[in-house]
Amino acid sequence: MPRILLTNDDGVDAPGLLALKQAVAVLGEVIVFAPDHNWSAAGHTKTMHKPLRVEEVTLADGSRALTSNGAPSDCVALAVLGLVEGPIDLVISGINYGANLGYDITYSGTVAGAMEAVVNGIPAIAVSQEFVRDEPVDFKVAAAVAREVAALVLARGLPPDTFLNVNCPARPARVPPEIVVTRLGRRVYRDALVRRVDPRGRPYYWIGGDPPTGIPEPGTDVGAVARGQVSITPITMDMTHYRFLADLRTWPWTEHLMVEDNA
Amino acid sequence: MPRILLTNDDGVDAPGLLALKQAVAVLGEVIVFAPDHNWSAAGHTKTMHKPLRVEEVTLADGSRALTSNGAPSDCVALAVLGLVEGPIDLVISGINYGANLGYDITYSGTVAGAMEAVVNGIPAIAVSQEFVRDEPVDFKVAAAVAREVAALVLARGLPPDTFLNVNCPARPARVPPEIVVTRLGRRVYRDALVRRVDPRGRPYYWIGGDPPTGIPEPGTDVGAVARGQVSITPITMDMTHYRFLADLRTWPWTEHLMVEDNA
Repeated sequence: MPRILLTNDDGVDAPGLLALKQAVAVLGEVIVFAPDHNWSAAGHTKTMHKPLRVEEVTLADGSRALTSNGAPSDCVALAVLGLVEGPIDLVISGINYGANLGYDITYSGTVAGAMEAVVNGIPAIAVSQEFVRDEPVDFKVAAAVAREVAALVLARGLPPDTFLNVNCPARPARVPPEIVVTRLGRRVYRDALVRRVDPRGRPYYWIGGDPPTGIPEPGTDVGAVARGQVSITPITMDMTHYRFLADLRTWPWTEHLMVEDNA
Repeated sequence: MPRILLTNDDGVDAPGLLALKQAVAVLGEVIVFAPDHNWSAAGHTKTMHKPLRVEEVTLADGSRALTSNGAPSDCVALAVLGLVEGPIDLVISGINYGANLGYDITYSGTVAGAMEAVVNGIPAIAVSQEFVRDEPVDFKVAAAVAREVAALVLARGLPPDTFLNVNCPARPARVPPEIVVTRLGRRVYRDALVRRVDPRGRPYYWIGGDPPTGIPEPGTDVGAVARGQVSITPITMDMTHYRFLADLRTWPWTEHLMVEDNA
């Protein structure tokens, strides 16, 4: 029976994690190891400057879970390094409250959980659910999709260095939704600097602004979610820009290079 | 005159940053905006859960710099969002104390500074210096290389979504060093779980172990640095696994997909 490790970045009590757990329970033995607090936009972190606490907690469905004060990637690392006994066949991170599209994947704590699995040679899936402000969020579709994707990955495996990034639209065009395989699209961030002054007269700043939008090009994750489709994007951790290698090799690298001995 | 923003993840007082600043000063107007403390392995972070403080400080050479309590990526974001007036033509992050090879780039705060620049449409370079334990570190070669790379990038530009990841060996095979254009290689992490017990009898954990090694394959960053060469790797932020897309599209995505209405 496959052993599936679940983590997330919204914290162990998040409803998206519970929905994921209940959906994939039929596929194997499920272990939950998630942060004890929210880690959105945490990036791929390895916590080495502070000790990590690990606690056992009880989820809303009465099952046990491990939690730590580290990031999602720390939870995966701790599990792999020995806090979870025995092999792990698949890591699923999510279901994140909010889409992770385009450049988002470089910031996303949810995606970082999948990255840490890949670094450790374990296939992984990141699952995220778009939301619309002031509308209730339903993880039902995303959970069913996660189960389907997980079953296929367990049966077929993934290439080395690869994970799948799954995004479900807030408003599926139909249910069950159409699933499309996409490339990463283009996010448009609308961050703005918000300057405030503290009671002692000193300025401080928030990175504020509006939620990101995106360019809904055909074939991209941004486009699919905008059209109400579920997007599945294969992601490689080999970020080498292969098409640019040959050009870059023709640059005159050492023509002027001087290292001053007296510097 | 080009405007060059420098950041790092070792903190604004790090000697690698000062060496970088002095080396690239001839190329244009240099602005330093770096974290006020060390952020190693911070990943690509966007700090939205706490306010950011910004201070002006004086570097060891008497010049002014901006510093914040955010990560390197936050420093770049704050600069772009308006804390630095006028356009920025190039971001250089480093010189990091320690190499950033293979998967390291997904964890690295240094590299995240370059990523944040790319997200904002600015060409970027990350520069890192390998060290050998108990041997003094010399940033002279890395600084000269950074100046050379920066001059070429300012003259030629980079493709969209792209930055250059530069690594200098601790022991260059010759000086001036040979510069080679590489792909990302394979890191071998040797992390180990270290369990301790606090004075109240409760366990806590460190992610410890030995520094990573690597597989020095020809053509890779790991291999180049192992041979005493300077490695320059072009990195794309488009992490789509293009070669796997066609295969993944043949998977039977919706064959069994059921969304229970009563879930």
